[in-house]
Amino acid sequence: MKIDLLSISTSPPTDISKEEIKKETKALKEEMNELQQLLYAESKHALLIVLQGMDASGKDGAIRDVFSAMNPQGVRVHSFKVPSSEERRHDYLWRVHKMTPERGMIQIFNRSHYEDVLVTRVLGNIDDAEAEKRFGHINDFERMLTDCDTIILKFYLHISEEEQQKNFRDRLTDPFKHWKHSIKDHKMAKYWPEFRQYYQEVFEKCSPEIPWVIVPSDSNWYKEYIIAKAIVDTLNELDMKYPKLNL
Amino acid sequence: MKIDLLSISTSPPTDISKEEIKKETKALKEEMNELQQLLYAESKHALLIVLQGMDASGKDGAIRDVFSAMNPQGVRVHSFKVPSSEERRHDYLWRVHKMTPERGMIQIFNRSHYEDVLVTRVLGNIDDAEAEKRFGHINDFERMLTDCDTIILKFYLHISEEEQQKNFRDRLTDPFKHWKHSIKDHKMAKYWPEFRQYYQEVFEKCSPEIPWVIVPSDSNWYKEYIIAKAIVDTLNELDMKYPKLNL
Repeated sequence: MKIDLLSISTSPPTDISKEEIKKETKALKEEMNELQQLLYAESKHALLIVLQGMDASGKDGAIRDVFSAMNPQGVRVHSFKVPSSEERRHDYLWRVHKMTPERGMIQIFNRSHYEDVLVTRVLGNIDDAEAEKRFGHINDFERMLTDCDTIILKFYLHISEEEQQKNFRDRLTDPFKHWKHSIKDHKMAKYWPEFRQYYQEVFEKCSPEIPWVIVPSDSNWYKEYIIAKAIVDTLNELDMKYPKLNL
Repeated sequence: MKIDLLSISTSPPTDISKEEIKKETKALKEEMNELQQLLYAESKHALLIVLQGMDASGKDGAIRDVFSAMNPQGVRVHSFKVPSSEERRHDYLWRVHKMTPERGMIQIFNRSHYEDVLVTRVLGNIDDAEAEKRFGHINDFERMLTDCDTIILKFYLHISEEEQQKNFRDRLTDPFKHWKHSIKDHKMAKYWPEFRQYYQEVFEKCSPEIPWVIVPSDSNWYKEYIIAKAIVDTLNELDMKYPKLNL
């Protein structure tokens, strides 16, 4: 799908009620918990949730707010940071494949293999030809996972540059957010147009069977709602059943 | 490549001298050790060696005889057994990808992901459609590894049914080989025609860029020679250089 991020609003639609949506989100989260239990009990599928977005787009918050009520026995989060020296000596999907979920589990990727075609391009570590090759690898990899009973959901947390700057300022002024401040983030924010272009390319080229969900993320309540709804809809499509008693 | 295993001899050619070949193998092994050191020092490429073959085709012996003189710091062997329950809850390439070599290393797979399109088919665990899908996954996976600087060498140790039976008998009569005896192997040997057919399909469909080396393996001295030669030729093609002193 061809996507022009600038033409997509980062705010909630104006014709919806925040209170109603919050109520719906609460119900969705309860349903999500029941579905997670069922996924775990049936153990036929795994769910892989990929969270991407610019710095300060609210990935950590989304994980906390959407998944915190879930049974941690069935949910794991992995944050992909700068690769270690051991990871760098392997192919870039090596550390990613290791962390994919087993059947019955929900795995959340806080950042992911997509950084290997995003920040790496912005920093000039790989050229366009290498990026094209990687789009192929990533599509092959995700297709294989899908064939092997892993459902993949990919979210892009879509915020405006103003919202990012506001979040950066919060980190400087709120003592409980100081720990999130990083001068590196501020430097990377200068590459917003490059990131936008490379993200758009990812949406276009890495969605043959697994499309991205673009989540307007300037407001947390709406971001939570969209993510919870996509997860519930996806899990409901699986038509899962509790296994019968096996004596 | 279309291969008819029955038309390929399992014995050494008759016009070569065993003594000469043994001398050559010795020289090849010395060269191989130097090249391994260079691979390790340069750390630009990894070498993945896949060893497949029927039970008692001499995979363990090949590993011992060809690689035992190598510096173990740069060489690792992994034997893929029946998948553990954790491994079975993931996609079948999960445990394989984890064991792929980092740059600078030689990794030997004693059996491999190819069992997932061989013994699984013989046992009826997967059907033809699933096998076709897996050929695609495997080709994608190996292409990705190749793109990421991993050289892959795939050997099929080609023995006759008579040689296999002889090796089975040795395991029953030689006290130092008793530990290798397995009644399961004898049972699987009945499926020789099915294995042959599925191996031939693998050679045809899983070699787009990385062809299989069919190694006549009834005689150990010839088997060793072919393997050592393929490795030396492959490493020599890399045009490796010792890194310059970096002060």
